[in-house]
Amino acid sequence: MKIVALAGGVGGAKLIDGFAKNLSPLDLTIIVNTGDDFNHLGMRICPDLDTICYTLAGMANPDTGWGRENECWTVLAGIKQLGGPDWFRIGDKDLATHLERSRRLMVGQPLSRIIQDFCKSWNINQKVLPMSDQKVSTIITTLEYGEISFQDYFVRNKCAPTVKRIHFEGIKDATPTPGLIDAIEQADAIVICPSNPWVSIDPILSISGIRTSIIKKPTIAVSPIINGKAIKGPAAKMYSELGIQPSALAVANHYKTIISAIVIDNQDSALSEAISHLGIIPFECNILMKLTEDRVQVSQDVLNYIERILNL
Amino acid sequence: MKIVALAGGVGGAKLIDGFAKNLSPLDLTIIVNTGDDFNHLGMRICPDLDTICYTLAGMANPDTGWGRENECWTVLAGIKQLGGPDWFRIGDKDLATHLERSRRLMVGQPLSRIIQDFCKSWNINQKVLPMSDQKVSTIITTLEYGEISFQDYFVRNKCAPTVKRIHFEGIKDATPTPGLIDAIEQADAIVICPSNPWVSIDPILSISGIRTSIIKKPTIAVSPIINGKAIKGPAAKMYSELGIQPSALAVANHYKTIISAIVIDNQDSALSEAISHLGIIPFECNILMKLTEDRVQVSQDVLNYIERILNL
Repeated sequence: MKIVALAGGVGGAKLIDGFAKNLSPLDLTIIVNTGDDFNHLGMRICPDLDTICYTLAGMANPDTGWGRENECWTVLAGIKQLGGPDWFRIGDKDLATHLERSRRLMVGQPLSRIIQDFCKSWNINQKVLPMSDQKVSTIITTLEYGEISFQDYFVRNKCAPTVKRIHFEGIKDATPTPGLIDAIEQADAIVICPSNPWVSIDPILSISGIRTSIIKKPTIAVSPIINGKAIKGPAAKMYSELGIQPSALAVANHYKTIISAIVIDNQDSALSEAISHLGIIPFECNILMKLTEDRVQVSQDVLNYIERILNL
Repeated sequence: MKIVALAGGVGGAKLIDGFAKNLSPLDLTIIVNTGDDFNHLGMRICPDLDTICYTLAGMANPDTGWGRENECWTVLAGIKQLGGPDWFRIGDKDLATHLERSRRLMVGQPLSRIIQDFCKSWNINQKVLPMSDQKVSTIITTLEYGEISFQDYFVRNKCAPTVKRIHFEGIKDATPTPGLIDAIEQADAIVICPSNPWVSIDPILSISGIRTSIIKKPTIAVSPIINGKAIKGPAAKMYSELGIQPSALAVANHYKTIISAIVIDNQDSALSEAISHLGIIPFECNILMKLTEDRVQVSQDVLNYIERILNL
């Protein structure tokens, strides 16, 4: 079964990791959000791409979900000593990725080609596609600071500011990376990972041509919200601040024009009826992925649900 | 006694280290070559400035003379794994300097101000002045590759190419850093460190206003050549390739319009008479600085010779 998965960072990476253990590498393509990408210390940093790649390569920090395992912090300590910015935690192993990617971007290589080469170096056999080779920047309009970049909101301000609006700078000029639309067309099903709908998945869906290709395919989402709370990150807080009660139902509603099914947690079984009324099939199981076994189990469950949709 | 020293990298740093141990910090200003500076991995790297600063801060690698003591190599290993350039050996501690300096340059801070801040962070109390805040690039015209940048010649090609010509790109638009001419005017004497005359000292002397200020001052050079050989680096090879017999006499001749004395090694006492004929006072002592004690001794000898010139 050929799967294309749409993913952001840590939450998405967990499900991707499960798929990687349940599918042949050739049957898994991951389309990754690059709206979080930003310039820092003169480098281009792509947090979601790195999280997905480090996870697939088995090099991710198991405690944080982002960054590298057995990381060293010599460079950041030196920058701090010089009074430089240390709010964005870049370890030494991670830094090599940013420096070499930035070097290649500067000589004109497209991001998708760079990621393809990096995957080869890291023995990643799945296809990892940045959503676009063009620069897209997620901008959060906040009550407190006006417009700030996503990392300013997410890391520097720890998601504390009140979100008024989210938009994606550069989205109109962004096109899907080469092979992305083909991968969707050749997929048996599309999976929307349990990533933040507003800032991880919406940027991908907003790129010209991606949403219209996905609509033609059986598509299933996995809720990033359990019992009204985000598993990680500010998704629930964003829903509230944007005037929507955070819940798996709100997620189903968010994606209602493109998904035929959603996987929600057992705890949210009370929402199944309302989800069904949207014309979306609700599947219930444990979707909290604490351990590696959970990742394998949830992804296997999702694959089973896809089989069921395909056989309807 | 107020001293202004002109210096390049490792050779100059040794004498500077000796001066730092013999003079009050307020009495020592170092003007450092920036012609070797170059862009690498998206960063601005200033090898001579860093060597001088690391040495003064007691953080230099005692084995190589350049780079940091107890250095780590995590980032370079990561870059190499990704197929990136690893010919220029940047350690993790050193990298922090390049990243933070590049960040500040990018937001428009002048190099001299950045170095001043770095010196404060590193508890360096001497005044370290880059020769200019404008970019100057030493270009080596070689028989084999045509024009290449200094680091391409020096590090990537290990000084193997035959030198035909040396010039300093951007030198006409470069002005001395703020305070540099004042420091020369207030100095009791100027010392030209045992650095490469062609690529470490000539760039400094070629900046508008520096040579004419130095000419008015008692100036003493320390030969970087002993017994026809460079103590370190390609100085002797450059002399030969440019058609000049390498020797302490050739160095005296190189600087003859600005120096009143030169310190040569005991081994070169046979050259004293010829140097005197140039109108330059030759002083003989051991000038090879292998140990820290040698640095202190040579710098003390140089200070004594300066006293003698000043009392003439």
